[in-house]
Amino acid sequence: MTLTIAPIRGLPEIRPGDDLAELVADAISGAGERLVDDDVVVVTHKVVSKAEGRIVPALDDAAYRRLVEQEAVAILRRRGDLVIAQTRHGFVCANAGVDRSNVEPGRAVLLPIDPDRSAHRLRIRLERRFDASLAVVVTDTFGRPWRRGLVDVAIGVSGLTPIVDLRGTRDAAGRILDATEVAVVDEIAAAADLVMGKADGIPAAIVRGLRARGDGRAVELVRPAEEDLFR
Amino acid sequence: MTLTIAPIRGLPEIRPGDDLAELVADAISGAGERLVDDDVVVVTHKVVSKAEGRIVPALDDAAYRRLVEQEAVAILRRRGDLVIAQTRHGFVCANAGVDRSNVEPGRAVLLPIDPDRSAHRLRIRLERRFDASLAVVVTDTFGRPWRRGLVDVAIGVSGLTPIVDLRGTRDAAGRILDATEVAVVDEIAAAADLVMGKADGIPAAIVRGLRARGDGRAVELVRPAEEDLFR
Repeated sequence: MTLTIAPIRGLPEIRPGDDLAELVADAISGAGERLVDDDVVVVTHKVVSKAEGRIVPALDDAAYRRLVEQEAVAILRRRGDLVIAQTRHGFVCANAGVDRSNVEPGRAVLLPIDPDRSAHRLRIRLERRFDASLAVVVTDTFGRPWRRGLVDVAIGVSGLTPIVDLRGTRDAAGRILDATEVAVVDEIAAAADLVMGKADGIPAAIVRGLRARGDGRAVELVRPAEEDLFR
Repeated sequence: MTLTIAPIRGLPEIRPGDDLAELVADAISGAGERLVDDDVVVVTHKVVSKAEGRIVPALDDAAYRRLVEQEAVAILRRRGDLVIAQTRHGFVCANAGVDRSNVEPGRAVLLPIDPDRSAHRLRIRLERRFDASLAVVVTDTFGRPWRRGLVDVAIGVSGLTPIVDLRGTRDAAGRILDATEVAVVDEIAAAADLVMGKADGIPAAIVRGLRARGDGRAVELVRPAEEDLFR
């Protein structure tokens, strides 16, 4: 199985009320391409949020900090301007996902209200347009404890099982694998980021060649507080 | 830029003292393929560790637990059989990287002593064999706080900058990006895992099409304790 990961170029700046599915489909068609069965379309949440009108004023740093507090349901850590917070969805990330990059000055972008639902809607529309069975992953860029640097992760998914459970299967040596639940959608999000790039303004990509279809929601990736050793 | 990610098939079971570079090169050549400039060869640390003789007896659970304590320089959390520990390299992971899957019963695999050096040696040999300028990433499978499921990350690298610093560059809207250091090698590790698969026994892959060459070591990914909010 060889994967290909291709950026989707030519998307315009997304505005509230835009039909994101149509714009993504047009960008793909405009490049002379099409989607085929089992393609995974990966989009950064920023274009989803913008299309859904999740852009709010943030005229100064104080207003931005108020937004962060408003979007957070729990603050895990603070240091200087950095706040590590849990969002309503359950995701733990910097500034509760409130972001001022790739948006016009004086404004901030919030996470989609229900990124799994956003992924699902996008998927249904793209499936109709290309007559293909697809999956969609909505991503954000998160930091990690212990490791420097950010990576893209999934915050919404449709048409894929977010975690593939290999427990009980055997490794190549015949030993039962005992702790191997792979967060496949996070690996897909990270892979897609390699062709998108925050500075290039390419907010979407196509991952082709995966055989990983299924069902589930990205909120299943949230580790319940009682299982979490770092809360 | 379109990426392709292809598994390297046909590697034999790796034994202490094996010439891993030669075996990887033979597997590539045997499939009628070759490496070209800018290819990134991704290998799971397990085959690196095995070739380097980092296999030790672990006859029962008590012996395994002693190994974990021996490989750890700091224990961050314990719950039941699970130990989250920091290794000598600085990585924070389950059981200090000591692993009993994909190895014969009664044995455990330790992390390479210096995975960056392992990556470097592999790179030099593969570059000579294919007369190409390459990069190598050595991976392991880590859990994360807050998020369920495991993802592959880089624990060794040669020929790539592990973290691409976009701070000071401008986004598509002209705003200075202010907190965007991307852990590109971790995204490469995650991407490669999509074609490897723990149950399939495919321990290596080729990522082709990236333009991300540079220098650095995976230990640069270790967040210094004083910067870390979760220690």
